[in-house]
Amino acid sequence: MSFQGEQYPGVQSPTAESDGFRLNHTMLRVKDPERALAFYTRVFGMRVLCRLDFEEMQFSLYFLARPEAGESVPEATGERTVWTFGQRGVLELTHNWGTEEQADFAYHDGNAEPQGFGHICFSVPDLEAAEAWFDANDVEFVKRSDQGKMKNVVFVKDRDGYWIEVVQAERLAALGD
Amino acid sequence: MSFQGEQYPGVQSPTAESDGFRLNHTMLRVKDPERALAFYTRVFGMRVLCRLDFEEMQFSLYFLARPEAGESVPEATGERTVWTFGQRGVLELTHNWGTEEQADFAYHDGNAEPQGFGHICFSVPDLEAAEAWFDANDVEFVKRSDQGKMKNVVFVKDRDGYWIEVVQAERLAALGD
Repeated sequence: MSFQGEQYPGVQSPTAESDGFRLNHTMLRVKDPERALAFYTRVFGMRVLCRLDFEEMQFSLYFLARPEAGESVPEATGERTVWTFGQRGVLELTHNWGTEEQADFAYHDGNAEPQGFGHICFSVPDLEAAEAWFDANDVEFVKRSDQGKMKNVVFVKDRDGYWIEVVQAERLAALGD
Repeated sequence: MSFQGEQYPGVQSPTAESDGFRLNHTMLRVKDPERALAFYTRVFGMRVLCRLDFEEMQFSLYFLARPEAGESVPEATGERTVWTFGQRGVLELTHNWGTEEQADFAYHDGNAEPQGFGHICFSVPDLEAAEAWFDANDVEFVKRSDQGKMKNVVFVKDRDGYWIEVVQAERLAALGD
């Protein structure tokens, strides 16, 4: 029998009604899309799968992902939009037009009060190589792997100040035991 | 040649340094883990892949995902933890011990001021069936599919008030054109 999930108070078994549900994306608002896109495409190697503009409501949405090797992303726009909403691990960046020109404008990271959202997380093949890559790109660190109580866990900030956790999966085996 | 990503100001081509990076999870703080786990396991069919307790710092982390049909999740805890951090589409729920007993305690959803994080999104096979399922589970709606400007897009709230977008991918083809 395959793994059915750990049991804790509240946990229930999935029923047929949620068959096919898939956690597709996480949305973060960004002040300046050029700055945010430069960061996520260069530093984290993401690609812009589609952009949706809503002129009447004055905002644009950018959907980014890292297609795995061998995954084929459709070229045709409509087909690609459908593909995008069927994936996992997509990042949606919302740009409310004009915020990039407001000197004092900044979004709330969710870690300062009032708290809520905490971070997104990337896993990487080599944590030290990733840290060197972040340094080479002037990425701000919240915590390096050799700092604090949780070794092997890195936190950096994106250009809007949102926290990004960075881990190397196979180093975390001991956490679960 | 396969799709290389849409080009907008700021967008850069990925380099070798980010090979293998993978958007693994999104972390949200929750007030009451029993309430949150009941919601995400029953309504969205997620499974608890692992739980990590940090007694000294008085918090617990729950990692949830929806393994796809045919995906094999390791039974052994350490191996399963490693597997979890190598996936896409994982939801991490953080429980700071004791918040569930504070009557007035609530987390910030990121959509009220100060804004930042917006929502997570699930894609589903049948949007009307999903809406009926949400109603059957007393899920609070922000917007039904037939309301507002964006037809075919549903927003509900989880038990902490975080927004969850719900879409049926193939209905969104026209958005991209």
